Amino acid sequence: MNWDEKRMAEGILYTDMYQITMAQLYYRYGLHERRAQFDHFFRSYPDYGEHKAGFCINAGLEWLLDWMDQARFRDEDVAYLGSLRDPAGRPIFAPDFLNWLREEGTFDGITLRAIPEGRVVHPNVPVTVVEGPLAMAQIMETSLLNHLNYQILIATKAARICEVTRGQSLLEFGMRRGHERGVNAGARAALIGGADFTSNVGASAVLGFPPQGTHAHSMVQLFMALGEGELGAFRAYADVYPDNCVLLVDTIDTLESGVPNAITVFEELRRAGHQPRGVRLDSGDLAYLSVRTAKMLNDAGFPEVSIVLSNQLDELTIWQIQTQIASEAPRYGLSADEVIGRLIYGVGTRLITSEGDAALDGVYKLVAVEDDGGWMPAIKISESVAKVPNPGQKAVWRIYDRNGRATADLLTQVDENPADAERLLLHHPVEHGTYRYLSASDITSIEPLLEEIIVDGRFVYERPTLEQIRERRQQDMDRLHSGVKRLLFPHIYHVSLSEKLWEQKQALIAAAHAA
Amino acid sequence: MNWDEKRMAEGILYTDMYQITMAQLYYRYGLHERRAQFDHFFRSYPDYGEHKAGFCINAGLEWLLDWMDQARFRDEDVAYLGSLRDPAGRPIFAPDFLNWLREEGTFDGITLRAIPEGRVVHPNVPVTVVEGPLAMAQIMETSLLNHLNYQILIATKAARICEVTRGQSLLEFGMRRGHERGVNAGARAALIGGADFTSNVGASAVLGFPPQGTHAHSMVQLFMALGEGELGAFRAYADVYPDNCVLLVDTIDTLESGVPNAITVFEELRRAGHQPRGVRLDSGDLAYLSVRTAKMLNDAGFPEVSIVLSNQLDELTIWQIQTQIASEAPRYGLSADEVIGRLIYGVGTRLITSEGDAALDGVYKLVAVEDDGGWMPAIKISESVAKVPNPGQKAVWRIYDRNGRATADLLTQVDENPADAERLLLHHPVEHGTYRYLSASDITSIEPLLEEIIVDGRFVYERPTLEQIRERRQQDMDRLHSGVKRLLFPHIYHVSLSEKLWEQKQALIAAAHAA
Repeated sequence: MNWDEKRMAEGILYTDMYQITMAQLYYRYGLHERRAQFDHFFRSYPDYGEHKAGFCINAGLEWLLDWMDQARFRDEDVAYLGSLRDPAGRPIFAPDFLNWLREEGTFDGITLRAIPEGRVVHPNVPVTVVEGPLAMAQIMETSLLNHLNYQILIATKAARICEVTRGQSLLEFGMRRGHERGVNAGARAALIGGADFTSNVGASAVLGFPPQGTHAHSMVQLFMALGEGELGAFRAYADVYPDNCVLLVDTIDTLESGVPNAITVFEELRRAGHQPRGVRLDSGDLAYLSVRTAKMLNDAGFPEVSIVLSNQLDELTIWQIQTQIASEAPRYGLSADEVIGRLIYGVGTRLITSEGDAALDGVYKLVAVEDDGGWMPAIKISESVAKVPNPGQKAVWRIYDRNGRATADLLTQVDENPADAERLLLHHPVEHGTYRYLSASDITSIEPLLEEIIVDGRFVYERPTLEQIRERRQQDMDRLHSGVKRLLFPHIYHVSLSEKLWEQKQALIAAAHAA
Repeated sequence: MNWDEKRMAEGILYTDMYQITMAQLYYRYGLHERRAQFDHFFRSYPDYGEHKAGFCINAGLEWLLDWMDQARFRDEDVAYLGSLRDPAGRPIFAPDFLNWLREEGTFDGITLRAIPEGRVVHPNVPVTVVEGPLAMAQIMETSLLNHLNYQILIATKAARICEVTRGQSLLEFGMRRGHERGVNAGARAALIGGADFTSNVGASAVLGFPPQGTHAHSMVQLFMALGEGELGAFRAYADVYPDNCVLLVDTIDTLESGVPNAITVFEELRRAGHQPRGVRLDSGDLAYLSVRTAKMLNDAGFPEVSIVLSNQLDELTIWQIQTQIASEAPRYGLSADEVIGRLIYGVGTRLITSEGDAALDGVYKLVAVEDDGGWMPAIKISESVAKVPNPGQKAVWRIYDRNGRATADLLTQVDENPADAERLLLHHPVEHGTYRYLSASDITSIEPLLEEIIVDGRFVYERPTLEQIRERRQQDMDRLHSGVKRLLFPHIYHVSLSEKLWEQKQALIAAAHAA
């Protein structure tokens, strides 16, 4: 794709065909400017086989807003749509509709509320709420889901990895294996979720984070082919980057060649007044090699040099490496904390693709339609009760317990205020007889989660910096119970309906079945 | 990201940081214009747990070429690199190097050979071979892998799905769950692999394929909320799209409401002189519902109406649906072929993300360096023998057996011609004692696989159309043994080394260990 083609492929036509065929139908029936509300939410946490997530981290909103800000039906877009033919050879889209798209097909009528990026989010809770003229609210569905599903997925994976790295640096470098241009969004989401840096230069430039990276095996191979050997390669690297010298030590043999050569070069660096930074291990038994490498570096007088680990890392692999180090380090007279405390983790493929569950099941469902100035709830009855969306306009609250930990998210009708109640009934979203009471004395605070982002096409939201989004994530993580954060079989966080919302939903289901 | 930021993030800085730090090192040591060869290949087929692939489909080259054609070190890019600081606060990149990037940092010296898109490809075979000045050949690594790994992955997944759809239409509609902007490349790769259409409007526009799509549940919900019911929604759809009427029948109850209402509308359409096209099933037991729906449509006089299936489909699910239909259809007096022959498959998430194995392990390895006009092979000795790349400049051949089926891919030294041999020795790439002989009489043809794409920065390749790439895929698939194509436990296709190449590799490994 050249840049003109990219504008075509990533502008307003960055959507599914059926959004536009539906929009034309609404136009034909005079419904295109009828106001409707769509809720965006996901139905389940990413499920990595034996280790399903117990929380998600919200991300992606800002790049969705950028898309909305720039996507317009240009002449080229409308001309393309006008060229499409149905099986009978007739134009699919009529000139009056195309003209309406050209003149009126903007997001100027859209109101958007959202839970801010970086916050912990849970299934079935509206993360983004779009209210606006039906045609354009429908056309933006695909792009909204595309922008949000992936970034939430990756921010969540990064936050899980962060839970096991215990404050040690985490580098994202999955660009080569990620899904083409999606890697830029992946890098951003990884930073939101807790990665400290990315190797991706372009994304770093746009996001204002310094990119990180040292050298690959190819540099060592080159010096070997030219007869200078691994030591020659390391010396060259130290010469050019004396204050940022991290050496990849596994091209030939980590313990027999790489680490000894690195130590030689580190000694030369130190004599020249520089502080060596680290070695990187990219193959083999990373736990065993970390311990042996730490020992060799210590014995050579470099206890402060970092050990960067890479090669198919994810939260389970890192956890396993730490556990193995705990049993292995004492054999070499080292404490486990000392070894683990000098590790840096480089994560690639398994973070950027969310290996094990590569998609979040976020959806965008019609929940209400305006009629005569009021709002009518809309419902979809599916085969599975759990998949029936919660109807109507709603408010979303987070309830904190006596210890200040989040204990439940509560969906209510839009005019309810749970802070007014002496005793709250939290209804299970699906099971009839399952509910829980919370009395006011069990609660330290109740927080509304949705914020106004766009009101009638006008951006009213002050964009936070990436650093602020990262702080918000950390605050929310600190307020989660550790059972919800654990890697295996996490405790299920409560997402509940108020009694009023529960009853409204049951009435609508019954009415739809009766119709 | 706005468009200026996009140019920054997707231009020449669309790479890993270490490529640029290595390039500066090469510059500093006068090696940046030394010619080197890198091979791009993947090490293993996508592995979907119990059903590992037995072949891959090559894809992605053309969009890589587009990137190379446009990526240049602009003033903004160089200024950004100049702003980066090391931990000691000093600039990472020096002005002379940055100036070289600005003036000489282009792909003008690159020669690129590749196996064309659409062809069947196998592990450890060079798919793309880059030869050129070291610094720029290194800088392009990340983008090359990013463009090719993902499209090969998705074209392969699509081709596997195509193997079970048996000529029925296959629609790609995974945009909402794919990895952000990667979905455009995913749509292209799916079409190369055998999907017939995509729902992605922008990608369709750029690729010259008509996008496909009908309507969502939300349209039916809307008419329900407005008191018009499912029948009202279907009537409106048929009114606006009388010649392309595919109705989604599972918003309320597929067999009790959706299909009967669709039949009512189809009868009205037919009376008005139009041909109804199909119904879509998006939930429930798709095999059972297909049989029941087929029966109801037949009984109503619509045996030609298609049944579109969607909802978490992939090659295994489709295979299972067909198998279940085969046992279920006769109970309703239908033949399985009759039901299966009217199915159309809509695949979303599991195709666009290659669910089950979301990354191809493609790599880009230094294999040779020019020295005094000759080429010196480069080697990397890893812990695992299977991961040692095949060194030096090589030729790649496909050998067809007496039935015209591909029987092996053979890597040779660049000056060997296997067609000259009376008897070919095909050496296993890793195992010492394993080899196979082919005599000339066993062979119908030997085909070189690599084609010249770029010679010294000049594009010499006439770009095929997407349709031609699709035909190439079909031809190659037809020449694969069916054992290689099967979904479960496929036969392992032979990728072999010539005796000369095998011996050179062993000698280099021994020399590197001795060094």
